[in-house]
Amino acid sequence: MPYPESMVRLIEELAKFPGVGSKTAERFAFYILGVSPETVEILSELLLKVNENIRYCHECYNLSEKEVCHICSDPTRDHGLLCVVQDPKDVISIEKAGDYKGIYHVLMGALSPLEGIGPKDIKIKELFERLKKTAIRELILGTSSDTEGDATSVYLLKHLKPLKIRVTRIAHGVPVGSALEFVDKATISRAFRQRQEV
Amino acid sequence: MPYPESMVRLIEELAKFPGVGSKTAERFAFYILGVSPETVEILSELLLKVNENIRYCHECYNLSEKEVCHICSDPTRDHGLLCVVQDPKDVISIEKAGDYKGIYHVLMGALSPLEGIGPKDIKIKELFERLKKTAIRELILGTSSDTEGDATSVYLLKHLKPLKIRVTRIAHGVPVGSALEFVDKATISRAFRQRQEV
Repeated sequence: MPYPESMVRLIEELAKFPGVGSKTAERFAFYILGVSPETVEILSELLLKVNENIRYCHECYNLSEKEVCHICSDPTRDHGLLCVVQDPKDVISIEKAGDYKGIYHVLMGALSPLEGIGPKDIKIKELFERLKKTAIRELILGTSSDTEGDATSVYLLKHLKPLKIRVTRIAHGVPVGSALEFVDKATISRAFRQRQEV
Repeated sequence: MPYPESMVRLIEELAKFPGVGSKTAERFAFYILGVSPETVEILSELLLKVNENIRYCHECYNLSEKEVCHICSDPTRDHGLLCVVQDPKDVISIEKAGDYKGIYHVLMGALSPLEGIGPKDIKIKELFERLKKTAIRELILGTSSDTEGDATSVYLLKHLKPLKIRVTRIAHGVPVGSALEFVDKATISRAFRQRQEV
């Protein structure tokens, strides 16, 4: 065994991180070896804290340290406007943009028949239960623009029709700041199909 | 603040890992969020243990959980054969190959005038003190084959001459299993210059 035992075990644990192989895990372990005891203590505590305390919001399935997240419990937000997204990370991205003032519903995935992910595997039932309880004026479909995201949108749209809620889909097109020459064909096609009057 | 506070702080800490940016740190934090409490406890303990317990061997500067590493304290190894390397990782690589049965001296770096690393900044003084105390039959220069590694070898060779110890350098040439077409020019030149009788 070339490394001391605790080093070997740390490398094994770090190699479980997403996208990290044994070489990268070795580099991380050497980093840990070299930092101050305070830094490691802080890291060690935060790991435990995040794993123990961060839960999914009971309302919207966004990340939260409390039972109901800071967005759902914020009275200044528009609770009649609901954006449906696939992942807590999507909430972060929209919040970083800073314009949206409504609330969210995180599906925790997208429909994917190929991977065996059906409507029961993501938070669709919870969405419809929420729509029964709460008066939503407009529902924005904010799922991804890939096959799974589109399939999820189509499925939701079909089941939302009878509820007579206004349903919109976020716009897809050429990213702001992109030169057309660097934009893929599918995006350009969509940007043309969904062109708007100016 | 889009993420809960402990999550933000964990992402900040994880982004200090070598080669990890904020996006990767986010992915790591989501991984931590999803694993079992036992996994996080083990990881957290190992981080503290490695940072606290792993030291550099007082003899050779290899990694060790004790004052003297398992190689220096192994009586079955050849203590008359000393291989000088730059980094504890080099010891690991040589040990993995499994042939070498001598001991090591880790310089903890290489000479690099451009980066201001001189003989006093690496464990060269310690090497010569060790050579005074211990009877070394052969010293193998195992530094890297780049500018810094070669400069370190040349420097050591010059100062080793008066000691009348047999000094060798590990062979450089075409890697075993490589087709010549994929080997760089510098390696091929060296392989030709240092060709051996068969």
